[in-house]
Amino acid sequence: MITVHHLNNSRSQRILWLLEELNLDYEIRRYERDAKTNRAPVELKTIHPLGKSPVITDGDNVIAETGAIIEYILREHGNGRFVPAIGTEEFNLYQHFLHYAEGSMMLPFLLALYTGYLGEAAEPLSPIIMGEIKTQLDYVEYHLIRSDYFAGDELSGADFMMIFPLEAAKARGRLLGYDACLEYVEKIHKRPAYLKALEKGGDYAYGPS
Amino acid sequence: MITVHHLNNSRSQRILWLLEELNLDYEIRRYERDAKTNRAPVELKTIHPLGKSPVITDGDNVIAETGAIIEYILREHGNGRFVPAIGTEEFNLYQHFLHYAEGSMMLPFLLALYTGYLGEAAEPLSPIIMGEIKTQLDYVEYHLIRSDYFAGDELSGADFMMIFPLEAAKARGRLLGYDACLEYVEKIHKRPAYLKALEKGGDYAYGPS
Repeated sequence: MITVHHLNNSRSQRILWLLEELNLDYEIRRYERDAKTNRAPVELKTIHPLGKSPVITDGDNVIAETGAIIEYILREHGNGRFVPAIGTEEFNLYQHFLHYAEGSMMLPFLLALYTGYLGEAAEPLSPIIMGEIKTQLDYVEYHLIRSDYFAGDELSGADFMMIFPLEAAKARGRLLGYDACLEYVEKIHKRPAYLKALEKGGDYAYGPS
Repeated sequence: MITVHHLNNSRSQRILWLLEELNLDYEIRRYERDAKTNRAPVELKTIHPLGKSPVITDGDNVIAETGAIIEYILREHGNGRFVPAIGTEEFNLYQHFLHYAEGSMMLPFLLALYTGYLGEAAEPLSPIIMGEIKTQLDYVEYHLIRSDYFAGDELSGADFMMIFPLEAAKARGRLLGYDACLEYVEKIHKRPAYLKALEKGGDYAYGPS
């Protein structure tokens, strides 16, 4: 059975959502961020040497990195669900957004988060970071105006990746004017499996308001 | 035929390396960074709405995001090369490192790069960023001590992803004491296909010194 090593208020919430959509049995082992530093506990290093969440274990397999976890779960336990047919444009988009979410989109948001700790001293970087956030959100909006989900008209693995950066952007008020993005997040937040995962995961700052 | 939209001194160099290892026909369209801002030219937006490099075109397909490009090339033109057998531990590592390179490893290096523009004002963030760089390099070193390549004893798609963060770390003197990482980079830098790609790609600040 799959065990999700789950950190509160983290990107592992989307793994719970995927498992609920697939209606799979799984268990959750909970880890709490340090109240002062907000860091994941060292204990997670006993599961995987990187010491980050999400990590899942499944028999002898230990899988880290959200994109790899989603691909693993879909391959081993998905029965073909949420993966477009290979060779289609939808499959190419699926693979693109699986990498894009953490490989490109998250970067300027994390830059804003980290440099935010510097206060006014970070001012000179602000136009660059804001410009980069706009590039990413314009791109996602452009896509969602044309398509119901990230890999076409049906929910796919790409959506489980993309929900987190969009939720994080929304929570910081960055989606104002991005109507297709806002509508997308609201649509996902109404899914019964999403809500069930939220109930199981506990503490999550980016869910439905 | 595959066209690589190639930006000088960028992550697209590794795509050329993959194409050379596969001995595929391809063409290169060159783009130059703005000499002042170091940004990719707006012209790239006519290829893909994100306006970033690397992007490849192949018939009607336009593929962006390095990890997705590598997976696309291997799937469509790889004849099974550089992909471990599905269901093996090597395949899980292959998928892990395909996502890890840009999804986790690059982040602290990019934080260091961006906050570097702030000079001393960024000092308060330095321990956090350096700690995070150490976490990533310790992990990669741990892995390379145990394994010749990222997904086991043979070169795979994961190596084409991982070479760039390692080269960038080396160029900034961050690999001192990480002997397995250094040895790995040197080993890759001796491969004939790597050298051929370097010759074709032109201007690249992170190649063999």
